[in-house]
Amino acid sequence: ANIVLLPGDGIGPEVTQAAKAALGAIAKRFGHEFAISEALMGGAAIDATGEPLPAKTLAACQEADAVFLGAVGGPKWDKSEKRPEQGLLAIRKALGLYANLRPAVTHPALYDASPIKADRLEGVDIMVVRELTGGIYFGEKEEGTDAAWDRCAYSGEEVDRVLHQAARLAKKRGGKVTMVDKANVLATSRLWRRRTEALFAEHYPELELEFLLVDAAAMHLLSRPASFDVLVTENLFGDILTDEAAMLVGSLGMLPSASLGNSGPGLFEPCHGSAPDIAGQDKANPFAALLSSAMLLELGLGLTEEAQILKEAVYDCLTQGQCTGDLGGKLGTKAATQAVLARII
Amino acid sequence: ANIVLLPGDGIGPEVTQAAKAALGAIAKRFGHEFAISEALMGGAAIDATGEPLPAKTLAACQEADAVFLGAVGGPKWDKSEKRPEQGLLAIRKALGLYANLRPAVTHPALYDASPIKADRLEGVDIMVVRELTGGIYFGEKEEGTDAAWDRCAYSGEEVDRVLHQAARLAKKRGGKVTMVDKANVLATSRLWRRRTEALFAEHYPELELEFLLVDAAAMHLLSRPASFDVLVTENLFGDILTDEAAMLVGSLGMLPSASLGNSGPGLFEPCHGSAPDIAGQDKANPFAALLSSAMLLELGLGLTEEAQILKEAVYDCLTQGQCTGDLGGKLGTKAATQAVLARII
Ligand SMILES: CC(C)[C@H](C(=O)O)[C@@H](O)C(=O)O
Ligand SMILES: CC(C)[C@H](C(=O)O)[C@@H](O)C(=O)O
Repeated sequence: ANIVLLPGDGIGPEVTQAAKAALGAIAKRFGHEFAISEALMGGAAIDATGEPLPAKTLAACQEADAVFLGAVGGPKWDKSEKRPEQGLLAIRKALGLYANLRPAVTHPALYDASPIKADRLEGVDIMVVRELTGGIYFGEKEEGTDAAWDRCAYSGEEVDRVLHQAARLAKKRGGKVTMVDKANVLATSRLWRRRTEALFAEHYPELELEFLLVDAAAMHLLSRPASFDVLVTENLFGDILTDEAAMLVGSLGMLPSASLGNSGPGLFEPCHGSAPDIAGQDKANPFAALLSSAMLLELGLGLTEEAQILKEAVYDCLTQGQCTGDLGGKLGTKAATQAVLARII
Repeated sequence: ANIVLLPGDGIGPEVTQAAKAALGAIAKRFGHEFAISEALMGGAAIDATGEPLPAKTLAACQEADAVFLGAVGGPKWDKSEKRPEQGLLAIRKALGLYANLRPAVTHPALYDASPIKADRLEGVDIMVVRELTGGIYFGEKEEGTDAAWDRCAYSGEEVDRVLHQAARLAKKRGGKVTMVDKANVLATSRLWRRRTEALFAEHYPELELEFLLVDAAAMHLLSRPASFDVLVTENLFGDILTDEAAMLVGSLGMLPSASLGNSGPGLFEPCHGSAPDIAGQDKANPFAALLSSAMLLELGLGLTEEAQILKEAVYDCLTQGQCTGDLGGKLGTKAATQAVLARII
């Protein structure tokens, strides 16, 4: 398999090294051949080429079987004309990555770290499926000094394909889908609701289907998190709700993500961002990158057992306290990665 | 003063009775004359007149010094052509109520009820100022079977006036304003950011100003709630974040709101909604309605001392456990209201 790594900015390169090492260890243990290469992305790409997503990088990604991204962005580019995040939005669109999967799974070792009470965290295992290439992110917009507007648009097809993705996941999980919208106000939400009713009635009558308004969802994610299984929603709501759900887990350093299209490579990325304040200090928590690598193995390459081994290694380290300071451990990025690798070999 | 009550639907009429009784008790104690009348709104108005906001109701509100709304909506009207919520959106727009104030104040008696850990709840006193008559709520929209779109638009003036409102509140409070947007993606958010920078530099250089992306805000509201003072944001973000912040308080039954314009009456409303499942059973918690009445006294009629007395009476009942079942007490709606009134007379 051909894997492209995009280290990016801040702590991105450090956690990408962790991912690379883990993919190497898995390949060795299972006798796979992974051709791993690196390409420029984000601020690093702006500095080197003037573009956040250089054509060469995109071409390499399009050829790949899976893409791993470390993180992009940082204060260095806050006032620059081209911004690192534009590269992120551009690669999502260019690779057609319409389904963003963000699992929020709690673990007893992190109950203390979460602002949410421990009794609510038991058994929380939510898979948020966020639409990633439509909505207000990619609509027409206009910006003046005295006024501005953004357009949120969805086609029925854009809605259906991500609903199918969510439903397929639910069939392999708890069998429940919660669709989140603002149907009492938005036309696009009413489209989402109608398409959801029709699609689930026709294709997935066996699944439990729940509708929730986005404001209520922001409450219920905290008051009854364990009752969610798959939560599917449009782009902007997904952006907000996944970050809220992250608080359940207790650490941004434990949150992986996968962005998938219909064909072509998926993009796998830790959710923590570039954390420029701790970059280059061997402090970054590599676990989100390692869990993202596990998603890459499973969803990108279809290597389920390999993914399971890597995931278990990470959680075993967490349970044993072999982790970085943000999780209450004493290890640096490299030592925490080594602790995981030692459980794979 | 001339006060119009809109009881509305579900538990709306019951909590409106509580508000009416409290306003009466305050009038008596302080020797004020309140002319209190009632008008139809929401589902009740649809049933009686076919319209969620009858012209007669709107006219009565426009003549008033302040308007109190119980709650609107319920499953009865879920499939009806006109919906109760349309009345709510219409009255906001018609009265020019562009600033929605939702305080989220924690109290030790409710720490157990909140899903958030008690140590984070200490000293939380957030005033969310949500823009209420612009943005994607009131933009052009189009809805078809195969596609739909909504437009989010803001003018600089719409942004400035609600920023002024937030800044004036901050001056009387902790002196800090957090402006929440999604400036890395939305043109309207960049307008908000630019207007905020300019307006605070010119008019409020003494205030502390913080910018936060909406996804980060959804996290920080949970991880560091006590660090917020005034949070100002656009309509849709405000809808989501106020409901999330409600979880800090621990009970929807303790959340008041005020919606204000530049001139004309304000609208004061508990945030709990119509709760049709417990309507008519003397179970509804009247405290949010009573705290909304306190906001009506203070912000609607300028009666600061009166407002303070009413607020203290409510919190004293809460501390003494003289409250409804949702707050761990044993009283019904009427008895809990009486407990508050007994502290006013
Ligand atoms: C950086 C930003 C554009 C991006 C988004 O809003 O999608 C990020 O918040 C995310 O969730 O991946
Ligand atoms: C009922 C609905 C239209 C309304 C809104 O979204 O504004 C409600 O959620 C609120 O926050 O007052």
